[in-house]
Amino acid sequence: MTKTAGKNKFKVHFNPDNVEIVVDQGENLLQAAIAAGVRIYASCGGAGTCGTCKVQIEKGDVETARTDKITDEEFSKGIRQACQTRVLSDLSVYIPVESRLEKAVLAQEQKRVSEIIATGWRFVPPLSKYFVELPPPTLDDNTSDLSRLLRGLRQRYHLSNLSIEFNVVQKLANTLRDGKWKATVTTLVTAAKPRAGDRRQPRVIDIEPGDTRDKHYSLAFDIGTTTVYGQLLDLNRGRVVAESMAYNGQISYGEDVITRIAYCQKPGGLKKLQQTIVATINGIIGELQARSKVDAGRISHIMAAGNTVMTQILLGLNPQHIRLTPYTPVANFFPAVPASSLGIEVGDHAYLFTFPAVASYVGGDIVSGIVGSGVHQRKALTFFMDIGTNGEIVIGNSDWMVTASCSAGPAFEGGGIKHGIIAAEGAIEDVKINRSDFEPEIGTIGNAKPKGICGSGLINTVAELLENGVIGQNGKYNRDLPTKRVRPGTDGYEYVLARASETQTGSDIVITEVDIDNLMRAKAAMYAGCQTLCKSVGSGGCDFEQVIIAGAFGSNIDIRRAITIGLLPEMPEDKFIFIGNGSLLGARLTSFSTDLLDDARRVAQMMTNLELSENVEFMNNYVAALFLPHTNAEEFPGVSKRLAGGSNNNQKERIKV
Amino acid sequence: MTKTAGKNKFKVHFNPDNVEIVVDQGENLLQAAIAAGVRIYASCGGAGTCGTCKVQIEKGDVETARTDKITDEEFSKGIRQACQTRVLSDLSVYIPVESRLEKAVLAQEQKRVSEIIATGWRFVPPLSKYFVELPPPTLDDNTSDLSRLLRGLRQRYHLSNLSIEFNVVQKLANTLRDGKWKATVTTLVTAAKPRAGDRRQPRVIDIEPGDTRDKHYSLAFDIGTTTVYGQLLDLNRGRVVAESMAYNGQISYGEDVITRIAYCQKPGGLKKLQQTIVATINGIIGELQARSKVDAGRISHIMAAGNTVMTQILLGLNPQHIRLTPYTPVANFFPAVPASSLGIEVGDHAYLFTFPAVASYVGGDIVSGIVGSGVHQRKALTFFMDIGTNGEIVIGNSDWMVTASCSAGPAFEGGGIKHGIIAAEGAIEDVKINRSDFEPEIGTIGNAKPKGICGSGLINTVAELLENGVIGQNGKYNRDLPTKRVRPGTDGYEYVLARASETQTGSDIVITEVDIDNLMRAKAAMYAGCQTLCKSVGSGGCDFEQVIIAGAFGSNIDIRRAITIGLLPEMPEDKFIFIGNGSLLGARLTSFSTDLLDDARRVAQMMTNLELSENVEFMNNYVAALFLPHTNAEEFPGVSKRLAGGSNNNQKERIKV
Repeated sequence: MTKTAGKNKFKVHFNPDNVEIVVDQGENLLQAAIAAGVRIYASCGGAGTCGTCKVQIEKGDVETARTDKITDEEFSKGIRQACQTRVLSDLSVYIPVESRLEKAVLAQEQKRVSEIIATGWRFVPPLSKYFVELPPPTLDDNTSDLSRLLRGLRQRYHLSNLSIEFNVVQKLANTLRDGKWKATVTTLVTAAKPRAGDRRQPRVIDIEPGDTRDKHYSLAFDIGTTTVYGQLLDLNRGRVVAESMAYNGQISYGEDVITRIAYCQKPGGLKKLQQTIVATINGIIGELQARSKVDAGRISHIMAAGNTVMTQILLGLNPQHIRLTPYTPVANFFPAVPASSLGIEVGDHAYLFTFPAVASYVGGDIVSGIVGSGVHQRKALTFFMDIGTNGEIVIGNSDWMVTASCSAGPAFEGGGIKHGIIAAEGAIEDVKINRSDFEPEIGTIGNAKPKGICGSGLINTVAELLENGVIGQNGKYNRDLPTKRVRPGTDGYEYVLARASETQTGSDIVITEVDIDNLMRAKAAMYAGCQTLCKSVGSGGCDFEQVIIAGAFGSNIDIRRAITIGLLPEMPEDKFIFIGNGSLLGARLTSFSTDLLDDARRVAQMMTNLELSENVEFMNNYVAALFLPHTNAEEFPGVSKRLAGGSNNNQKERIKV
Repeated sequence: MTKTAGKNKFKVHFNPDNVEIVVDQGENLLQAAIAAGVRIYASCGGAGTCGTCKVQIEKGDVETARTDKITDEEFSKGIRQACQTRVLSDLSVYIPVESRLEKAVLAQEQKRVSEIIATGWRFVPPLSKYFVELPPPTLDDNTSDLSRLLRGLRQRYHLSNLSIEFNVVQKLANTLRDGKWKATVTTLVTAAKPRAGDRRQPRVIDIEPGDTRDKHYSLAFDIGTTTVYGQLLDLNRGRVVAESMAYNGQISYGEDVITRIAYCQKPGGLKKLQQTIVATINGIIGELQARSKVDAGRISHIMAAGNTVMTQILLGLNPQHIRLTPYTPVANFFPAVPASSLGIEVGDHAYLFTFPAVASYVGGDIVSGIVGSGVHQRKALTFFMDIGTNGEIVIGNSDWMVTASCSAGPAFEGGGIKHGIIAAEGAIEDVKINRSDFEPEIGTIGNAKPKGICGSGLINTVAELLENGVIGQNGKYNRDLPTKRVRPGTDGYEYVLARASETQTGSDIVITEVDIDNLMRAKAAMYAGCQTLCKSVGSGGCDFEQVIIAGAFGSNIDIRRAITIGLLPEMPEDKFIFIGNGSLLGARLTSFSTDLLDDARRVAQMMTNLELSENVEFMNNYVAALFLPHTNAEEFPGVSKRLAGGSNNNQKERIKV
């Protein structure tokens, strides 16, 4: 960035943002936009080679280095590459939508996830950095260091409503002088707008000497009961810089939230579990640091979504009242806390934001998934489900939402299944059964020798067993079939999926009637929850425009087979959409947009939780669903007809996402 | 408080507050008002004996126990004692101004200080307590503990815009259950309203089981360079419960702010001085606790006013840049900090608020004094001066204020004076000199044997010496007088105020020419500062309606004599008003009223500081003022005439306040 010798200053007005900045003659227009807080996408970083930072000069004079990225027609309309353009007079500049950073981020995100994603938000991260050059104090202008800083921020960025953290005041004098009165402040929006029209009051959480705007990082986390996912985000470019995952170290203290809560009641138990999850998080941060070469001390914010129990344990809030009726969490929303106070190894100034929860068993991970997938933005009725140990379901649209948690049990994650394992290398995930000889054809993750069966494999297997008459609709084996694959075992009858000679374990891998029973209980809980929720809102036939399936596990489900066993409702397959880890998606998108962060708070408040644990109708629905696909054939007319006809197995049109 | 058996609920509307509360039939009207946040003065605590809680029933039915405090005429107008009245229907109740708590507090304060005190504020302390009885959670109502609490606060007190401290969330579940769903929360307003129309966002800083509203305490502190004053305030009654003072322990590290700043630059020096002032504060808190029997753990807030150096050291902010040109403080306003983080021994949840400063040498103590004395509320031009080691002066009214600091030197506090001592027992404070034989008649504090001379004594002595021709207007002794009281000494000529045989010290107590010179320098700095400030605002003749003199020392000044030596401008004596410790006054009043706290922020911002240290005009004025009373006789026409006439000594109409 060179400047002309002249000391002339010009006003540059950016539309449609309607913000203005005063710059020196010759200032680079992309830099001016960044300084003004206007977000322009410049994927090449201002080298002039990508052509993404096109803007339209509405009024005024510029000097530009034209490249082949600008057509003659564009040039005649005043379109220029911002990075190649210098300011020669007062300007009015229009930023077309395709040059806006949020557009680019949205495109990246859709590529990453699916077309179902929150839209219409501005790229305005809750975490911001601002660079100021301050005039050094003189006898005629000897206001305090803090007032000088705030004056600079007001003059350059029109920021006038900041609160200041004490730690910033503590290091202010030295930082300003070390940087020769050039400094970069980091601000954070932690609270929602009190009401429309009120102004936000961002906190100044850090100050660094010099211009450090290029180092602008935060973290998005999904804190799962089993697995923890973390992403390092570059907030200048709206990009994931690195990602990593790890098993939640708390697994050693119990597989599900109930056993974790129980552990917290032991002396020192809560503290131990808190330290364990913090260690898991720190491990992921270390990995992200190694992959990105970004110093973790430069990370200034964390957005974490997790279920209510995981969130409370992370914050050191005893979850004891979640376990017992009437199942109350300590809080539905949690204040942002200094990450370092929990032992999380990021910048000392960084805050940890945890997503608001709806209830004890509908947590911030669900709120995050709803916001990330934009359910709250749509007029059309949507069914959102997060399938896991604790299946959560949401029905609603932009006006209202109801939610419930169904204790599905661990079958979907391979838990409680004789040879169940998590979805890792060697897990059987695909199964076809030959109708004539009942022999299986199996596919494993990584094409490794099988060592067990994962949740999606279990669903596929049971659907195949059912469609081929190996089991009946009650989930019991047909003991008269001409095959040795079906045999009596220690847990009742079983089907041999892989013989000892073919497996990593050296033992047969089987599916027992107890396994099938566990799966039926899990799928019945999900389906009954959906029915009960539908009934509660009087939406009649539950005419969903879309069914969004979240959860890492969800992505691997075969829709057709999930319908066959009665897990998913019988609907056209194109209505089902997988978004993968919705919790992480929401944590990431709210890191990019304060608009969506506000939405998260609103969504948590608008969701009505239906408590199913002692709901009689739910129990009735549940019992009725303990059948394949359902005791009421009208719920699954297509499947019932197919099973009656005994045909149509091994469909080729299966959707895999 | 008894309740009738009926479960009827009635609305009680209070005017002019325009707030409403729903209560059970039979509720005591005083309790209803307290619950609604309407502040009624009830000096007897509701026993019916004081008659201060009179209200007017505008509409509706009540049951009342009439006492002789209500006249027939009052009774016929619907006037009742709130404490003796029960609600029998929906009511509209008017609180007359004389029953309002702020009226009572104002009356107490005026008795305590003077008629010059901020008025027109509402009794709405920044620290509040609210009691809620919550319905225990059920399966139909199993919202989180925090949401339940906030709902209760919203329903009962219309509080809807609270932020929550994490420490409250941490102890929430146990506190609510320990108190059987009855709890008292403490809220604090720490930030100014962002702008008119915006709502405040009080922080919930504490929660206690049960109803603890009767324990509602805060502290007001004046942190002086030499002396620290503390008061324990009962925020239910707007009263000082106990007060105490102590020398600032930092005195051992230097007498004035400059030496303290220097000490801070030594390794560990800042930390040492911070610990020292905290120890002084804790000593005072211990004393307040002993005197009041109030547990210091129940103290929930501290308002502290001090000069900029004292404030920065207390907060651990190195004051190094205050000492050197261009004299910049770290901040003009300081975030509230947890008092316990500094080691102050009050409730863990308590915050320390320090008054905003104007500049390095015009600190929060001056802002506090201005607000406490209501200078910012008056249209008339006021001259405010705080006389001490570092004399600060303010000129202004409700629209504008200018201020300056004059390095007066320590003479006013007895510093740099051969036999100078602070104003304690045995200090000579009153002196009359017989014109015929030049013998002195002295008065000491506590009528003890003299042991030195304090600042006010020095002023009185020099004025007497001047009026009786013992010294000339140049401050030098007339060596030809027929008295042995004037004699040569080690520091030039001196006057013997008390002979060795009469003193505690066993040595003569004298006033030397060097002492007189030091006093002249001090008074010249104050007077020249005032002149320079007047000139800077173009207010011509400085036509002040009032001169407010703050500072513990100020109260003991003899106005006439202070005019005689040229310390105070020559004006009618009834224009001078003493308010004593203005810094403590402001700290106390802002503890009672958030209105005044907002004023303090506004005042700090509206004051323009004039830097005198390198101001040429100030230097000229200063040199011209190094004479008694002044080189320009027109500045003090009355004194000059009197001195020329050589009469009028020993005036009897001296005002002592």
